Parts: sequence; structure tokens; C-alpha cells
Amino acid sequence: MPTAPRAVYRRADLAPLLEPRSIALIGASPRAGSFGERTLANLSRFAGNVHLVNARYDRIGERPCHPSVSALPEVPDCAVLVVNREVVEGIVEECASIGVRGAVIYASGYAEVGRPERVAEQARLAEMARARGIRIVGPNCIGVLSYVTQARMTFSAVPDVAAARPRSVAVVSQSGALGFALAQAADRGVSFSHVVTCGNSADVDIADWIAALAEDPACGAIACLFEGMPEPRRLLEAAAVARAHDKPVVIHKIGTGEAGAAAALSHTGSLAGSDAAYRAAFDKAGFVVADRFEEIVELADFFSKAGRMKAPGAAVIATSGGASIMAADAAERHGVPLPQPDPAVRAILESHIPEYGSARNPCDVTAQVLANLESLGECAGALLADPAYGAMIYPYVYAYESATRRIPWFSRLAAEHGKPVCFAWLTESLEGPGTRELAAEPGLPVFHSMDRCFAALAAWREREERLAAAAGEDAAGRAAPDGAREAAAALLDAAPAGAMLTEREAKRVLAAYGVPVVEERLARSAEEAEAAAEALGYPVALKAESPDIPHKTEAGVIRLGLADPAAVRAGYETVMANARRAAAEARIHGVLVQPMVPSGLEVVVGARQDPLLGPLVLVGLGGVMAELLRDTVTALAPVTPAEARRMLGRLRGAGLFAGFRGAPAVDLDALAGIVARVSELAADQAGRIAELDVNPLICGAGRIVAVDGLIARSEA
Amino acid sequence: MPTAPRAVYRRADLAPLLEPRSIALIGASPRAGSFGERTLANLSRFAGNVHLVNARYDRIGERPCHPSVSALPEVPDCAVLVVNREVVEGIVEECASIGVRGAVIYASGYAEVGRPERVAEQARLAEMARARGIRIVGPNCIGVLSYVTQARMTFSAVPDVAAARPRSVAVVSQSGALGFALAQAADRGVSFSHVVTCGNSADVDIADWIAALAEDPACGAIACLFEGMPEPRRLLEAAAVARAHDKPVVIHKIGTGEAGAAAALSHTGSLAGSDAAYRAAFDKAGFVVADRFEEIVELADFFSKAGRMKAPGAAVIATSGGASIMAADAAERHGVPLPQPDPAVRAILESHIPEYGSARNPCDVTAQVLANLESLGECAGALLADPAYGAMIYPYVYAYESATRRIPWFSRLAAEHGKPVCFAWLTESLEGPGTRELAAEPGLPVFHSMDRCFAALAAWREREERLAAAAGEDAAGRAAPDGAREAAAALLDAAPAGAMLTEREAKRVLAAYGVPVVEERLARSAEEAEAAAEALGYPVALKAESPDIPHKTEAGVIRLGLADPAAVRAGYETVMANARRAAAEARIHGVLVQPMVPSGLEVVVGARQDPLLGPLVLVGLGGVMAELLRDTVTALAPVTPAEARRMLGRLRGAGLFAGFRGAPAVDLDALAGIVARVSELAADQAGRIAELDVNPLICGAGRIVAVDGLIARSEA
Repeated sequence: MPTAPRAVYRRADLAPLLEPRSIALIGASPRAGSFGERTLANLSRFAGNVHLVNARYDRIGERPCHPSVSALPEVPDCAVLVVNREVVEGIVEECASIGVRGAVIYASGYAEVGRPERVAEQARLAEMARARGIRIVGPNCIGVLSYVTQARMTFSAVPDVAAARPRSVAVVSQSGALGFALAQAADRGVSFSHVVTCGNSADVDIADWIAALAEDPACGAIACLFEGMPEPRRLLEAAAVARAHDKPVVIHKIGTGEAGAAAALSHTGSLAGSDAAYRAAFDKAGFVVADRFEEIVELADFFSKAGRMKAPGAAVIATSGGASIMAADAAERHGVPLPQPDPAVRAILESHIPEYGSARNPCDVTAQVLANLESLGECAGALLADPAYGAMIYPYVYAYESATRRIPWFSRLAAEHGKPVCFAWLTESLEGPGTRELAAEPGLPVFHSMDRCFAALAAWREREERLAAAAGEDAAGRAAPDGAREAAAALLDAAPAGAMLTEREAKRVLAAYGVPVVEERLARSAEEAEAAAEALGYPVALKAESPDIPHKTEAGVIRLGLADPAAVRAGYETVMANARRAAAEARIHGVLVQPMVPSGLEVVVGARQDPLLGPLVLVGLGGVMAELLRDTVTALAPVTPAEARRMLGRLRGAGLFAGFRGAPAVDLDALAGIVARVSELAADQAGRIAELDVNPLICGAGRIVAVDGLIARSEA
Repeated sequence: MPTAPRAVYRRADLAPLLEPRSIALIGASPRAGSFGERTLANLSRFAGNVHLVNARYDRIGERPCHPSVSALPEVPDCAVLVVNREVVEGIVEECASIGVRGAVIYASGYAEVGRPERVAEQARLAEMARARGIRIVGPNCIGVLSYVTQARMTFSAVPDVAAARPRSVAVVSQSGALGFALAQAADRGVSFSHVVTCGNSADVDIADWIAALAEDPACGAIACLFEGMPEPRRLLEAAAVARAHDKPVVIHKIGTGEAGAAAALSHTGSLAGSDAAYRAAFDKAGFVVADRFEEIVELADFFSKAGRMKAPGAAVIATSGGASIMAADAAERHGVPLPQPDPAVRAILESHIPEYGSARNPCDVTAQVLANLESLGECAGALLADPAYGAMIYPYVYAYESATRRIPWFSRLAAEHGKPVCFAWLTESLEGPGTRELAAEPGLPVFHSMDRCFAALAAWREREERLAAAAGEDAAGRAAPDGAREAAAALLDAAPAGAMLTEREAKRVLAAYGVPVVEERLARSAEEAEAAAEALGYPVALKAESPDIPHKTEAGVIRLGLADPAAVRAGYETVMANARRAAAEARIHGVLVQPMVPSGLEVVVGARQDPLLGPLVLVGLGGVMAELLRDTVTALAPVTPAEARRMLGRLRGAGLFAGFRGAPAVDLDALAGIVARVSELAADQAGRIAELDVNPLICGAGRIVAVDGLIARSEA
């Protein structure tokens, strides 16, 4: 786990970049198509001073041009460097020395090319930012723009929008091109407050941007295109700021492939790839994950408009039977309830809707009602007033039919009831009359897919439930018993760095954290084994106790179900013989004798240290489910018992916990408590434990017990 | 299973609807916005005669208007009825009597309202169509249009397109509104040959349209929006026509959920079969399933442009690092290989691409190459010439940047190499310069989603593999042994209609079809049971043999792993006692004695008769996988062994067949043969077997054997 990074920047820190009063364009150029010329054009609506700097020109167009930033008539708040990499460092130094507090650096050729001298060059910029208090965007970025201040400090082609609606979408992107690709949605009416690209993030990074934008009242939701970062736990700090300001963060990660999967010692470790670790971080942060690029803006726009959810049910008001069916399919797929209207509401619907329509939910008002705004408004209003509904969906299938007449009606109703009216705009990506006006309306989210509309409603509900749960969990204490930390540390420190603990040692550590482990005795002879079996009760299991044989089944050093003294004595000899054969130099402490645990549902709990995200905890179902179907859920450790319970509930095989084919139901509270304790162990002892594996945890009638455990000590 | 329906209509049958030389508009009207006025406006580009019929007018605009269809100066090929339901029947009768061969009926209020008299009214129209040889579209439809003949017989607003590109997309929709919603894509350049809606399908139905359009050279692929139909096996007949003409069919089904299916029932009166059964039918038909509405046109357009696949690999040529990563992610998600270019190709790329780009795949040519069409063309050409690639993907992120200059280059390259160049148009649904020109290019499919682009490439490959497999299977004979049909029929007929066969009877039927079943003997006393066990070898299983106790485990009439004579005798008495307790009136034929089968992977094979689609066969993995995770694959029965093998491969848990945790690998050829034989049993005996269940089939080392079987006879 990395050492604690600096605190995230906040809005005040990044004010020179987001709200500069004056901007210096260093490397200004009159050449058409040059970055300098394009940036200057993008600054045309900026109300503050724009100063041009370029020693080659006295004037550019109507504006004076200055030889250096020091020669400017005032100290600009922010500088945009449109210059070659070679001169960047000197100019940043000059800017910092005269008191410029923000810099945007387009130049590339730094750490991204991988050469040590270029990495060092970028590190010098970072150090200058830190030491001199100048906030740097980039290098290797496309720029930063605000539709609030119109400080559009970018060379990218950008939509020319005069003002941002309050609570607009802010875009934060680690990919410059994709960030501005998202911002194109402004040209179809989506309101953006800011679009920022990170480039190489020498100073300001994506976590800083999230925190700073969350504090900006112009921003209602943040759309984040994420690739990766060296200190991803900083996202959690940014997430806390976003949560405090109730600004939903929609995140889409690119680079999800298997490439970065780390080699792992034990089995469960390899089940959690780095993508799973990032997912766990997003989950912990409470971010809404957009799985596809085309969902990002829609989801963020929805969250900027939807407000807080008043009820999970949705009402569909349609004019096509086909669209009603599509809506019902999508609602079912995403688990969004479509409750029937209350009888009084139904009576209102019936008074307007002809008999060939449907006064139910989905409600088919027919083209007749649609043509009559009075009637449409009364039907929609009656549905929105019904407390069963938190949102309305209006499928819209023809771009030709102007929505303009209906927009003010729906907008007024949405505002009156404080509920979003979602337009499912199924027009084959076609724009049509009213499209832009519609997208600009604060209460009317637009989706270009019925499926994505309902996916968003499901994500909205999930976010609400998570916020409610988090509110109830703030006071949750530790799940592990007092003294666990110290007791386990002592046990762990007894094993050398990098070593694998024996099963017995591992179970002692687990037991210290309150994880129930199977009773056992260590036998050093066949006679001791027999005595142990007599004391524990037959049948018993025998296992070699050795730090050098982690894979006991493969080595043949496990004997199960031994039912009498003769079997135990014979088993002892076999285990010892196989143990000696398994590894010539193996230290064999003896043979563990354990009572056989009656069968039950087998659960796997694992933990590992992600190189970037620190301790992770993983749950899965034993055998096929976790190993073959990869049905596991990973979270950042530690988790509370309530969080652990949600993890268990997200397993595809979660239905097994209720008891399958007559098996007893699993005590989920007890199991969640164990998962929480394992997660605390992984987090508390992050410096000592590289990886641990409780496999299996047998969940039987009235009892959950770990019958095997594996702990790998961290390397020194 | 329904009786054999009439053969599907073909292009010649539907020529009066698709290629009429003259059209009568019955119920013509000058009233703006009326269906008559709108239909007439849509016929403005039609080159044939349009005759207006309405007794209330002498003229409408410049055209004469006639009192009846009989009064027209010629017999029109087709009539469009824009009249009230009450007069439809008489007018169709009149049309048929003078020799009109096609009719489009907009009027609603027929079977879809559910009243018996209206159902009968629709049935009379169907009978008239059959008896008088007039092809009827509707009633309750929005119409039919051809961009080839410009016979746009619809009142819907439609894109005004002068001509269809050869091998355009034909839309066939059971939902009128959604069908024309899809056709809006013409306004962004997608080329359509026809758009047809089915309405209530009194005569011409969706299967007819697929077959007829597949024969039309103007149609290159069919986009089908499907709800349900009373005789869905007719789709297979249509599919055979489409296959013969190499016309891919993309199908999207609405009403997939329980709520949606219920809504569909009341919508067009179509009978919604089970979604799994329809999926099986689409699979058998070789249709490409579009899971989301927004995929339909993209997929159909892709298939109309892509031609046959030359190689499964794809080359990505990008100008943004972010887009390259997105492409690699999507390729991995959908299993599309992105092989590296051959060294010679790489050398060409390196000669053009600057060092900060990437001469690999995904290939980042950089903005420098993009700006130079010579270089771009040479890079793209070198990649397309590499036999590793069957397609190229060009991510396009800014709608502002005109694609127009690049379109002819890519189009020429696509044509030269016979490989599609797919534009991943990631522009937030924005249109931009060149959009329409691009969509119209025959070799350049356009996707508004990187994910959907790669999903289409995966679907393309799957279709190619299926066609190749089907070509190799044409000669496949029956999997069941000779005489199976007769032997099983005799065994089944011995049981009364509606009865459940005993385990022994069921296994005899299975054995007749060559399904290996566990050896067994029927014992009528404890002594007979002991003798049987001695003969079969210990350990053994005992099971009550009774037609009245289908659920043996629950009734406690199974005893497993009995290892000696005493256990067998005691077991016999217990089974008999429990059997008598289970059902007072139960007929108990005795107790089956079977040798215990060594454990192995448990597979479930089932079959049932779908009320619409007939015999279905299902495979799944025993226990949790099939029952809890619903991991099953269903197909129309019978299947060939090769089809059965593909079914097994599609199980999520298919990895288990390779041997999990040291288990032996399953002999998939043997298993597939058994599945094929069970499917033949279900199909051959469709009139006798309502349902059958081989559960479990134990797949052990070198042996697969059914240890239990259940067969329910059909009701009389």
C-alpha cells in the first residue's frame, strides 16, 4: 500500500484554472489551424483579459503580442503553454516566479514515452508545482474549459455554448480525445459546466478534479472517463467531497482487459484482477459505473436532472403498443417496478383514454390523447401525483414529430412533482425538431435507448439505497474482538517475511480475529494422533502441518473421514510418508488431527494486497462457482458486516444461501460478520499479510467454521 | 404441435403488394392530416397509376375521385383501404371479385380487441384471402412501402428517399410504430429496400415477408421486429429461403419478459410463446438475434454491407489512444481477435507512422497520418491486404471533423479487398458532415457504439461458423438406432394417456433410443432384492418402482450405497413401507435394484412439447447450475450430434466438461450423441410424450449412464 498521498485539491485550489480572471496564451500564433490560433478562437467568449505571448510577433490580429509572460501588463491568473516541450520548464519557472497560479501544458513527450530522462523532466514539473504553488494541468493534455467562465483553454474543437444551466454535467477525462468527444453532446442540447482533461497528471489529477468540480455549484453531476492512476485510493477522498455535496459521479473505465492481472500465490488471489480492484474502489466510492462509452453522458445528464428518488416505481406513458412492451421488458430486465396506478388515478386516466388505449401502467394514452395537451397533461399529472411513482418514462419513437409543444408541459409537471420525466428517444440517433430544447430542460432526462433508460433508473435506486445504508452505518464499530490486532501481529511476526504460514499458524491468526476455525490437535506420532482422535471424536481428518507444503491435496498429505483408531494410525503414517516425499527438505511439524465437519455450503473468503489499492477482500462460493464461473465479489478492505452482506447478495449463486434442495439456510449475519473480520485482518495487517485464503468456510446448520486457512507473509 | 401450416408466400405471391403497377386508394381524402391524405402524399414518387376512391368526392386536388373500386378505369393491382372497419369486409369482397390481388388494411378493432365477434370478423378476412387469392396486409397495420417501386402504401411519416442501394436493408415489423421508427435511419443515410408492418397478420405474416423479401435482389439483409405468432415453426421455412439467397436475418423480439409478454398478448393478439422456445427457434433458423432495439438497424446494415467473412481477425486503425484502448477492451469482451500485422505489413506501417504513434494493432496512425490521405490509404491498404484481417475498425470521435474526404478512400479499399471498414462513430449521437454519405457507402458499416461494433463482428463470425457447420451436416443421419421409433411407441402406448411412466418403463423407452441406462432388476421381496444385489455387485441402490410416486427422494423411497445383504434386505423393507405411506393407493410394482454408479459430472437432458414450437430439448449441468443459475440451453428437437455439441459448449459451466479439479474429461462426442438421441425421441414421439427428464446422466471416466429417467405421457 502506498504511503499517504497529499490531500486532493479543492475548488479554491483550482480556481486559477476554472475561474481565472486573466489568461496568458504563451506561444500565441496567427497561423490558421495552429494550436495557438485554435485556443485563442476558443477564448472568444471569455470576459476576462487574454494576453498573447510570442516573441516573434508584435500583434496578432487586433491584439498586442508580448515577448514574454514577464513583459505582460498584469500577472495573469493562468497561463496556457502552446510551446515545445524543450522550453516548457523555463516558462513554467518564469510564470511561477511572477505569481501565475495556474498553467495548462499541451506539450507531449514526457513520462508517456517511457524514457527515464523524460520521466524525470515531468517529475521536475511536478516538484515545481508543489514547491511554487502553481497548479499544472498536463503535460500532454488537450486542455480545460468552463462554460461558466467561458475560459475555454483548449485547442480542441468544442461546442460553442453561451452558458451552462445550473447543475450541469462536468466532464473529467484522462483521455483528451474521448473527453471532448463526450462534450460534443452539448451540440444536441446537453448542458455542460466544465470539460477537463488530465493528460499526464503531473500535478492536478482526476481525483483533484472530481473534488474541485463537486464543490462548484454549476456542476450537478460528474462524468468521468478513467484509465488508471498511481494512487487510486485518492478517488475515495474525492468521492467523500462529492458525497458531501450530493454530486453523483458516473465513471467509465477503459483498459478493462486482462493484461494487468497479477500473478498470485494462492487461488482466490488470482480471482481478483486489477479491474476487479478498480471496480471495488468505484463501489466503495459510491460511483455509478457506466459499462459502455455511450452511456456516460446519458447517465450523468440523468443524475444531474433527476434529483433524489421519491419512490422506486416508474410510470410509463406511451402512444405505441410496441413501445409499451419494450418498456415493460426493460423494466423487468433491470428490476424497476412498474406498479399499477391507484384506483383514483386510474379513474382519471379512464376519463381521458379511449377504450382502445390502456389506462394501466404501461399506460397507452393513444394518439388521440397525445394530440390534446390538456388530456395528456391531466393523465401525466395524475400519474406523477401518485406516490407509487418516482419517475415517468415517455417513449418517443419519431424524430419527425416535434416534441416542442409537449416539452413545456412535461417540464412543468416534472418541476411541480419533483420527479424526472425521462424521454426514451428511440429515433435511430436522429435529431428532430425539439431535440435540443428537450435536452436542455432540467427535469427531462433523455435516453437514446429504452434499455439504458431503465438501467439508469436501476442505478438511481441503487445509489439511493447505498446512501441510505451508509447513513445507517456511520456508527458501525469494528467487527473483530478487542486485542485482535496485537495478538495477530505477534503471531504473524513469528513467521519470517515472505513465508507461508502453516495451516495451524494461519488458523490461529484467523481465530485471533474471531473467525471460527475447526478444533484441532497437533500429533507427532501415530499414538498421539489416535489419542487426539479419541478426544475430538470420530471421524477425523489428518493433515500434514508444514510451512513447506502449501498445496496439501496435491501432495497427498490429507486423509479424510477416518473412523477408527486403526485408520488414524495408518493415516498418520501415510501422511508423514507423503509429506517427506513431497519436499525432501520440508519441515514437518507433525500431523493435525481435526474432527470432520458435517457438510454444508462451502464459502471462500480471501484477501490480498493490491499494489495500488491496498487490501482487498473477496467472497465466493466454493468449488465450481468461484473457480470456474468466476462468481466472486471483491471489495476494498475493511468492510462492515452490512457491506459484507451486500457483497454476498451480489453473488450470482446467492440463491444458495437460502438453502438449496433442502439444505439449511445459511446464517447470513454470522457469515457477513466473519467476512468483515477477515477484511479487518487484511486491512490491519496490510504490512504483514500478502495474501490470505479461508477455503472452505463450511456453512452448516447453526454453525459456520473454517476448515482450512492459508496466509502468506509479506515480503520484507 | 400444430398441424402443418400453408407454405410461406414467396416474392411472386406478394408482388401485388411489393411491386404493384397500379394502386387504388379507397377512402381517399383531401383533409390535411387524414390517413387518406397522408397515404396519397407518400405515393408521390410512385411511377404507376394511383386511383382515388371515395363516393363523397369527384376530385381530390388535381386527381379524379371514383365512387367505388369497381368504377375505376382499370383493375388496380393493389388496394389500400383507408376506411372504417365496418365497411372493410364488403370492399375486400368487391376488390377480390374484380381481380385486385393485394390489399392493405389500416382499420383496427379486430382480433386484437379480443371479442369473439371481432375475432370471427378477422377470420372471415383470412378466409376470403385464402379462397379468393387476394393477399391481405393487416388489418390493424400501418402499411407497406418499397423504396424500389416507391409504392409507399402507408400513412406513417416516412423518409423521402429516391432510391434504394442494391442489397439494402428490408424492415419487417409486427409493431407498426417501431417498424417505421427503425426506418427513420434512412434520414441518416441508411439504405432501405422495404419497410413492411404486419398488423394482425390475418393473411400475410412475418414469415411470409421474410421469405418474399429474401428473394428480392434489392434486399441484402432483413431487420425483423418480432412479437410472436401462432405458428412460429413457419419461421424455419422462411429461414430456409433466406439462407438459400444468403440474406442474413437480424431479429429482435419484444415481449421477452413476463410483463412484456402479457402486454403483447393484449397488443396485437399474437400468441407469445416462451422466450426460451423462441430463442431456440431463432437459433435453429440461423437468425442473428439483436438483444436491444438500438442494435437492429446497425446489425442489419452491417450484414447488408459486410459480405462473407474472409478471416476472423480485425484490424483497428485509430488516431486516439483512448479509442484504441476502447477497441481492445471491446474486442476482448466479444472474443474478436486483434492479431498483430505480418512483419512486411508492419514495415509499411512503420514507414508512415511517427514514433509517437503505434505501428501495431490497434494501430495509432496519429493525426499526422490522418491528415495525409496518401499515408492513411497506404497504412489502411497494407492492413486490409494482410490475410489475418477480415475487417477493419476505424474509431471516429468528432462529428465536427468531416469524414467526407476519407470516405472515398476507405470505400475504395473496402471494395478492393472485399472487407468491410467499420466506422465506430463515437460522436454522442451527433450527426456531422459526411454522416449521410458514409452511411450510404456499401462497404462502410457504421456503429454508434464501439461495443456494438465488436458485438456485430462476433455475430458475423458466429453466423459464418454456423453456415460452415450446417454445410458439413447436411448428410447427417439419425442418431437413434433402427427400430427405435417403433419400439418406443409400443412401450409408450402401453401406458395410459396423461400418465407418468415408472422409472423402469421410462428407462426402457430411453434404452430403445440408445440412451445408456443403468442396469437394474425388479425385486418383489427382500430375498429377490438380495439376489439381485449379489448378481449386480455391491454397493447397490434401491428405488420403489411405482407409477404413482414420481418424486422418489421426497417420498423416502430411495436407498443408496447399500453395501451388503443385510443392508439390502433392510433397505427393501424401508422402501416398501415408505412407498405405502407416500400414497395410500399407490400401485407398487416392487423395488428396483441398481448397482451404484461411480460419481461423475452430472448432466441433465430434458424435453418438452412447446404449445407453439413443438418438441424442445434442453441440456444443463446437474444441481446448482441448471436449477439455481438457470444455466441451460434449449433447442428445437431434433438436433444433430454436432448441434448438441454446440448446445453443450454454450453452457456457462461448459468448462466443467474438460475435467474440474482432477475429474476426468467428459467424452463430449458420446454425450452429444445421447442428447441427439433424446431429442429424436422427443420429436418422433411428440404425440405421445408431454415431457421427459433424464436426470442425472452421470458422466464418468469412459462411461456415461442415465441413473434416473422420467417420462410423462401426453394427455389424450
